Amino acid sequence: MPIISLTTDFGEKDGFVGVLKGVIWGICPIVHIADITHAVTPQNILEGALALSRAAPFFPSGTIHVAVVDPGVGTKRRPMAARLGDQFYIGPDNGLFTPGIEEARRKNQVAEFIHLNKPEFWLPNVSHTFHGRDIFAPAAAHLARGIDFTDLGTKFSDPILLDVPKAIRSKNGWTSHVTIIDTFGNLTTDLRADLLDHQAEVTCKLRDQTIFGLVDSYGWRKNGDLVALVDSEGFIEIAVVNGSAARELGAEVGDVVEVTLK
Amino acid sequence: MPIISLTTDFGEKDGFVGVLKGVIWGICPIVHIADITHAVTPQNILEGALALSRAAPFFPSGTIHVAVVDPGVGTKRRPMAARLGDQFYIGPDNGLFTPGIEEARRKNQVAEFIHLNKPEFWLPNVSHTFHGRDIFAPAAAHLARGIDFTDLGTKFSDPILLDVPKAIRSKNGWTSHVTIIDTFGNLTTDLRADLLDHQAEVTCKLRDQTIFGLVDSYGWRKNGDLVALVDSEGFIEIAVVNGSAARELGAEVGDVVEVTLK
Amino acid sequence: MPIISLTTDFGEKDGFVGVLKGVIWGICPIVHIADITHAVTPQNILEGALALSRAAPFFPSGTIHVAVVDPGVGTKRRPMAARLGDQFYIGPDNGLFTPGIEEARRKNQVAEFIHLNKPEFWLPNVSHTFHGRDIFAPAAAHLARGIDFTDLGTKFSDPILLDVPKAIRSKNGWTSHVTIIDTFGNLTTDLRADLLDHQAEVTCKLRDQTIFGLVDSYGWRKNGDLVALVDSEGFIEIAVVNGSAARELGAEVGDVVEVTLK
Repeated sequence: MPIISLTTDFGEKDGFVGVLKGVIWGICPIVHIADITHAVTPQNILEGALALSRAAPFFPSGTIHVAVVDPGVGTKRRPMAARLGDQFYIGPDNGLFTPGIEEARRKNQVAEFIHLNKPEFWLPNVSHTFHGRDIFAPAAAHLARGIDFTDLGTKFSDPILLDVPKAIRSKNGWTSHVTIIDTFGNLTTDLRADLLDHQAEVTCKLRDQTIFGLVDSYGWRKNGDLVALVDSEGFIEIAVVNGSAARELGAEVGDVVEVTLK
Repeated sequence: MPIISLTTDFGEKDGFVGVLKGVIWGICPIVHIADITHAVTPQNILEGALALSRAAPFFPSGTIHVAVVDPGVGTKRRPMAARLGDQFYIGPDNGLFTPGIEEARRKNQVAEFIHLNKPEFWLPNVSHTFHGRDIFAPAAAHLARGIDFTDLGTKFSDPILLDVPKAIRSKNGWTSHVTIIDTFGNLTTDLRADLLDHQAEVTCKLRDQTIFGLVDSYGWRKNGDLVALVDSEGFIEIAVVNGSAARELGAEVGDVVEVTLK
Repeated sequence: MPIISLTTDFGEKDGFVGVLKGVIWGICPIVHIADITHAVTPQNILEGALALSRAAPFFPSGTIHVAVVDPGVGTKRRPMAARLGDQFYIGPDNGLFTPGIEEARRKNQVAEFIHLNKPEFWLPNVSHTFHGRDIFAPAAAHLARGIDFTDLGTKFSDPILLDVPKAIRSKNGWTSHVTIIDTFGNLTTDLRADLLDHQAEVTCKLRDQTIFGLVDSYGWRKNGDLVALVDSEGFIEIAVVNGSAARELGAEVGDVVEVTLK
């Protein structure tokens, strides 16, 4: 059974997400739908892009990711679909898919883009303010029911790309940034642990705190300890054991984390 | 595959929604379940009714909508099912389905009502406080697995109706009301845009603010602008571009919006 | 179609839950997934255990309950599966399944435990911090697709048990405790109503309030009345009609409720 994932800034209280599912199952009854998140800060495209890019690799080949963080809805921004590696992405052409596009290009994987300009794959009436319902969900459902990716519209090659934060080589290591603060208050950075050649002697500095070394997991230290570790997606993370690093440090997305190696 | 939708005031933290799904799939394994919302303000029947009525039209023919906002659970209020047009509704007879009933009657569509009084379609033990689990979810699942609508109980013809706010004709236009404030802080009114014969010269007034004209979508104006537009369900909406009209204006559900035409 | 339920402290904003579903459907495409709750207070094992134990009985035979509240992730705590009666449980061996284990043993039902130590039923790369994704979701999916329970790992017999609060016999009745405060502010206790031999003359005392008798349901009293009743899982509950007992009384989980019989 095909899978459609949903990543939006719709919240869960207004019924918008349920409507997407009604539309999808109305067009393609045999498809699973998984919510990734609907709690992206309204109109924060970068936050949505990062949330989707962290989750997507754990979905199977052929998954269709619908993402809608869409301040430009109803203007001239293109509705788009992308094939990146062995997965599909559908949403506004505003940078939401940047991390996946950059990764596919870096790995020389398939990276194809379609302008969703065929009304036969939309709802009959298209509003000016809810293309998630009227264009993106229907296009995803048609793709799930077997329409060929390239038949959904016209090819193009210049999707809009966001400036996604990246760790930068420094004299003794990397200057990285807090990219995501999760429910537990853990601070994820943009520094991939596999860029560190000898993790044992890593030092992380942020907000006047210095953390020596990496631990394997939270439970190896006592409650309240500030630790650095490799998170479950392979990035350097700062955490407080059974606590909230965000609250303890007053940390925010964008904070610099200086990582040095000895 | 049939679809059951869920609209409740249960919240998402206590497991009540998961239990509904367990009960439904225990009776009818082959059915999709879509959450519309579980964030209706506790016991606010009107709010639940409006949320459901906005989402339902986008679900396919045959969908079974289960709605539970049920302050009278365990008293003499009837458990009911309704067939309205080509969809089904199951929940307490307390006004939750008023908008759908009024619309079906206005359009001369099917509008039939069943008192759910057959225990063979309930769970074996019925509590006094959770008929969503013990009566409504099982009835929906039996309907989804093929039991005939009219076999679920005894017909009746006088469902309880709420007084749903409606825009009223005024000298130069319409006196309308804020009916829903969504996650983005947009203010939906009860004025259908198709009642306005010449939208170009519309003026909206609320809370000492006057908005001239309608825009097609948010993105045509700059951030922070207060705008009026036609929302995705066809109603007049007041919004702040990439901001919250509710917060900016201190607006609340029930506020009057005077709409005038020139 | 088999059913997997999910109970975690992951929250809904970070995409962790969606990832579990992607992993599960990647391994076993034909399975329903029901969220019980993802709002367990971070690392509060007892709260997760109680939430799961209240919901599980309403799921059908064969359901696989995945629960992840896992402060010891990545340390030596065992990943485990349990067969309790006719349902399955998968998660960390830290007490999360205590109520189900105690009930199965009390009822002389099947109670078998497996140490999940076979990497062929995990994801290829196992992180130190997200065993929900890397071990528990894959094990559940393999079980759902037909792998035998006992083939998932090595049998053991000494799962860790929590000290779950229990009502204690007092001179004239029972000393019970508030175990759960739900979305409505209702206070559930650990006292099963079927332990009371004559419910009509029950008196409940908590926080300087005395409540005489039990009502059948909220709607039999007027708004704002403080009442005691039998909740939908069969426990004594304290509630305010169309209000919040938690807020009115300032009640907290753990508060003593003295129940006396005359």
